[in-house]
This record gives sequence, C-alpha cells and structure tokens, in this order.
Amino acid sequence: MSEFEQATTVTPRGDGSYDATIHEGWDIMGNANGGYLIALAARAMGDAVERPPLSLTAHYLSPGRVGPVTVDTEVVRAGRRMAVVRGTVVSPEHGPVMALLGTFADQPDAERAGPSVVDAAPPDLPPFDECVPAGPPVAMNVSGFGHRVVCAYHPDDMGFREGNPTGTAMMRGWFEFADQGPIDALGLLVALDAFAPVCFNREEFPPSWAPTLELTTHIRETPAPGPLRCVFRSRFIQNGMFEEDGEVWDSRGVLVAQSRQLALIPKPM
Amino acid sequence: MSEFEQATTVTPRGDGSYDATIHEGWDIMGNANGGYLIALAARAMGDAVERPPLSLTAHYLSPGRVGPVTVDTEVVRAGRRMAVVRGTVVSPEHGPVMALLGTFADQPDAERAGPSVVDAAPPDLPPFDECVPAGPPVAMNVSGFGHRVVCAYHPDDMGFREGNPTGTAMMRGWFEFADQGPIDALGLLVALDAFAPVCFNREEFPPSWAPTLELTTHIRETPAPGPLRCVFRSRFIQNGMFEEDGEVWDSRGVLVAQSRQLALIPKPM
Repeated sequence: MSEFEQATTVTPRGDGSYDATIHEGWDIMGNANGGYLIALAARAMGDAVERPPLSLTAHYLSPGRVGPVTVDTEVVRAGRRMAVVRGTVVSPEHGPVMALLGTFADQPDAERAGPSVVDAAPPDLPPFDECVPAGPPVAMNVSGFGHRVVCAYHPDDMGFREGNPTGTAMMRGWFEFADQGPIDALGLLVALDAFAPVCFNREEFPPSWAPTLELTTHIRETPAPGPLRCVFRSRFIQNGMFEEDGEVWDSRGVLVAQSRQLALIPKPM
Repeated sequence: MSEFEQATTVTPRGDGSYDATIHEGWDIMGNANGGYLIALAARAMGDAVERPPLSLTAHYLSPGRVGPVTVDTEVVRAGRRMAVVRGTVVSPEHGPVMALLGTFADQPDAERAGPSVVDAAPPDLPPFDECVPAGPPVAMNVSGFGHRVVCAYHPDDMGFREGNPTGTAMMRGWFEFADQGPIDALGLLVALDAFAPVCFNREEFPPSWAPTLELTTHIRETPAPGPLRCVFRSRFIQNGMFEEDGEVWDSRGVLVAQSRQLALIPKPM
C-alpha cells in the first residue's frame, strides 16, 4: 500500500459516515494540504457510491489539523452511470473542515467516448531530472507535504524562490508521489493542489499564504503510469482574489484532469 | 420588478426551506434553463446568509419542469465575511432537480481589493445591433427562454445555425434580459448558461442536447449597467464530455464573472 493510500484510508461506520485520520506529514506549516483533504473526502464519497470522482467541488472551511476526522457522506442521487454525493469533513475537536459536492462516475467506455477535439498541448517541460524538485510553497518549506510528493518545477518558473518573480502568473512542473506510488483519480486530486500559488510569480504579491476558498476538479481520463506534467495559470487577479486554472497531463500526453480554484491573494504575514 | 426578479421570487418557510416556482417561459423545449434554476436556488441560499454568491457550484439532477419547487438550504458555516451554504432544488412531483454548494460574500471593498493583474481582454464583438439575436439553442427554438433573454451572437460564430460549424468550439455574444431588467450577481448566473453549447461549432457533433453535469460560477465583480459581453470556449472535448469555460465582461470592460461547466457531448436525437 502506498503512502498516499495509507494516508487516505477510510472506515465506514455503516450510516454514511466514515472514520478517517488526517495523517502527519501531509501538511504545510501544520495545515493539511487541500488536495490531500479532498482526496481523503473523495475516498469516502466514492466508497459510498462505488465509483471514482468525475467532478468534485470543495469549499475550504478551516485548516485541517493532524488527528481523527469523520467524513459524512450523503448520496443525493445514484443513477445507473452517475452519482451525486455530498461530503463534509469534520474534526471532532475543531469542527467542520471542508464541504464537498461531486458527481462520481467511471470514465466512459470507447463506445460512449465519441470524437475527440483537443485544442491544447501539454506544457513544454525539461526532463524530470532537469527540473527543480521542491516542496509546494517553496518559500515556506516547513512542510511535511514536500516529503510526500515531488513537485519538480520548470526552472523558468522558479524566479519567485530567489525573490525574482518571473512576471507571469504561471507554474509548470512534474508531479509524482515521493514513494512513486500509483496515481489514480484520487491521486490526481492531490496533483491539482500541490504547486505554489501562481501569484508568487508576480511581484505585486508576497510569497505568503493564499487561502483557497473553493476548488473544482474534473477528472477527464484515467492516467497512464508515470510522472504527470502540470501547469497552473491565472488571468484574473482582481478584487482581492484570483482564479487558478490547472491542467494535468499524463505520460502519453493525454489531459487527465483540470481544476479551477478561487483563492484570496496572499497578504504580507 | 423585472421579469427575472419575479421569476426567481422565493418565500422563506422559516426552517431553511423556501417555496419557489419554476416559472413558465424560462424553458428550452419544456426544461427550465440551467442558469435560471441556479439563480432561483441562489436567491434562497443568499437570503439564508444575507449575502450574494461568490462561488457557486450546481450539479444537475433532473430536468426542471414548470411548477412549485422547494429550495432547501443548509448553512454550513457563516463567518464575518464568507458563508458556505448547501442548497437543493426539489420538485414535490418530480423529485430532486439540482444540488448546489456555494460560498456567499459581498465583493471586497477597495481596501481589501489589493493590486489587479489582468492578462485578458473582453471578446471583440461588433456593436449589439450588428450581432445576431437568437434564443439560446438556436437550432431548437421552441423555447420560452429565448423570449426572456437576448443572446446576440457574434456573426462569425453563427455558422452552426446554417449547418456550417465554424470549426472553433467558441461562442461569443452580448447578453441582456429581454425586458432590459438590471443584471446583478444572480443575473450573471443566467448569462453564464444562456448561450448555445460551443461544440455546435464543431462538425463532429450534432446541434442537439448537451446535458450539463456540473456548472461552477465565480462572481468576480458587481456588473455596471448595460449589456454584457460573453465568450465561451472548450479546449478539451474528449471521452464523451467537454468543459466549457465562460467569461462575462461588463460595459466598463471589467470581467464580472467566470464559469466552467462539464457537459456530455451532444448525441444525435
């Protein structure tokens, strides 16, 4: 069992609630990574309907601290193909951590897939070994999460680490689990929230905490084995908030997941 | 009171549930427009926390038919600034219609807004009067909705109507309510789901029903008065599904809303 599978184990209570644990070592400065929390919740929600996530939205309520949590699930509708499920991650000590709503379904078979029209290409990345491995918020590397996943950044996007933002609100890089464990639909949820906020590469913003309000993920294909190519961009940093659009591509050059999050701009600490 | 305000009136029961009515004339071939349903739900959810929507996700469960519905709301967390709310639109006759989860908040004041970095421009549209007004799924114009809103399409994007798709999965146009009623945050939710599916402009797909699974909206600014410029695009039509990304810009040239939906590709009817 991989580190990720272990850390997202859930145990059904039989009434739609699941016992789980926010494990040590998946945190950034003491707070559990958001993608890890989403994956933990999705493990329970997916178990409730026996399908993997297709589209999953999470609203972040409070920081996830190490310790026991429950994931309360409620099946809104379970059809033959699609199931819509609500989830809530609750810490008995700290209260509600995350609220989720998702549609769960297997990827369609070839017959249902129909024609493809893809008007995009994977990010142009140097080979994995020529990229810069770093924990996610590189400027704040007191982070267990950086030991569980490898985000190997495009060298051209690393300016922010030396105090020289590139000027483009973009981050590109390779993603894999540190133990090279397999990446399934739940693993993709981690990849989609693992990189440093893109506004770190704009000099207007300090490389500080950028709290996510909401993150929506779409799983678009089952990933082939191997590290994933990721790119994150923002086009609208305004009104104290920014959207961050993510794409994850697998080793075949197939888009396997997309994300958009809405976050607060980082403020000086 | 505008047609839109009338058609989205909700009456609190006092227990978190609201009585509402899916009004006649907001349908496409008998099914209520999705953006209208989201706005109806958002009216109740926003009332429950006395704030407008900031980020709202809807999963579509079944077609909305004219008649009475309830909107059940549940406040997950109400902070000083942000409130997270669940919503469910239920028809007493037909069952659950839509499940929603959103963060509601006022747009920030100037002090909180901070620096802006916008790396995009509004779509280049001919003047309103030179665009082509049309009900939303133009190929299926048995639609009350087309009398409630005006989607005035860019002439260059109208090829699909004559059976000559442009080859680009994009739709651009102006949006306003037919009675020129004011467009607030709730009105933006309608604009974000009012245009024809972008894959109508790819010859691989028939101009037929493209069922939305999930739609996430972000309200990014309070719109100034006047018609709105809208653009919708898809880059990944694959595996039987496509994402559609929307932008809505106001008369000042400010981005006021974004959307992404995941929908099933249209199949021959």
